[in-house]
Amino acid sequence: MALKKGEKYEVIIEAATKVIARHGYYEAKVSQIAKEAGLGDGTVYLYFKNKQDILISVVEEKMGNFIELLKERLATKQDCLGKLYQLVETHFDFLSQDFNLALFTQVELRQANREIRAGIEPTIKEYYSLINKIIEKGIEEKVFSENLNKRAAASMIFGTLDETMTSWVMRDGRFDIHARVEPVYDLLINGLKGKVKGKKV
Amino acid sequence: MALKKGEKYEVIIEAATKVIARHGYYEAKVSQIAKEAGLGDGTVYLYFKNKQDILISVVEEKMGNFIELLKERLATKQDCLGKLYQLVETHFDFLSQDFNLALFTQVELRQANREIRAGIEPTIKEYYSLINKIIEKGIEEKVFSENLNKRAAASMIFGTLDETMTSWVMRDGRFDIHARVEPVYDLLINGLKGKVKGKKV
Repeated sequence: MALKKGEKYEVIIEAATKVIARHGYYEAKVSQIAKEAGLGDGTVYLYFKNKQDILISVVEEKMGNFIELLKERLATKQDCLGKLYQLVETHFDFLSQDFNLALFTQVELRQANREIRAGIEPTIKEYYSLINKIIEKGIEEKVFSENLNKRAAASMIFGTLDETMTSWVMRDGRFDIHARVEPVYDLLINGLKGKVKGKKV
Repeated sequence: MALKKGEKYEVIIEAATKVIARHGYYEAKVSQIAKEAGLGDGTVYLYFKNKQDILISVVEEKMGNFIELLKERLATKQDCLGKLYQLVETHFDFLSQDFNLALFTQVELRQANREIRAGIEPTIKEYYSLINKIIEKGIEEKVFSENLNKRAAASMIFGTLDETMTSWVMRDGRFDIHARVEPVYDLLINGLKGKVKGKKV
């Protein structure tokens, strides 16, 4: 039984995020992760069954923290627009604070291997469920259109945040992602046509 | 010098799309691609330097065809809204007609390896330049907001199309992607708030 907590577990997770971000999952070696963590290969195998287990654990840990933070922040806002703004801001802020994590997230969450995909899926579903709640709330509040195709709307929200992060990572973090919070929030609500004059939001 | 055309070249491209979609780039073997193509390994190496060359060539060929079709279709429409609708429709139609191609596109266009990324980049840039032209046109026509953050808008368009395709692929093609054309088009233009009553579009 692999250990799933403790100081060394955390150190390995950090090291794995870095090494996988740098080399990609398939080219990364467990021995590189161990070296980065300052541990022997054998120690890593006390905590993780294999490289696949490491990858899925990084997703669970890192994205798990992200989702926890997101839930806390969303809870501080009462209305759908406040929550949507928080979602955009937290997504960009959390991922951009650690370039390796951002790179890891943009590249490694799409996996061809079905076992890995199945391991990652619950985390992605949890994120989507937060988005779906905001959409439901917006329809209830009559701020979002009652004719909204909810699945299409969820894909738009996630896709826009995700692609904005991808373009940031692909340009090696060379633009101010925080300056995108406002325009992205505005685009999601008002679309390409923009705000209607004289109307709030 | 690797050959870059001919009947066998096309057969290998088709086989590679299938095998890479099924196993993922890193787990796919050149020998599997050769077998799928009904050719010997040696023949594959007459056409391609190595597996990386195959991957980049698949992107160039398949996405190249996609972009050609897109350009033709966009040219049939005069205004920004007609062009945007064509973009959404062609994106979903072209990729969904071949499940392997759709799977390949959603998983393999994000690569950690910098060499592969550099090989794929020109194709992605070309697609983005088509999106950018539609955005420029929409601003010129005063249909899209003059205050639009163009880069954010381009990420929204690409991200929404891409994420919709991802969700289709992840659900093994089990929803009618064509039925998403209309709602996605509407969301991109009007956002979550939806159409303003009494206004066209």
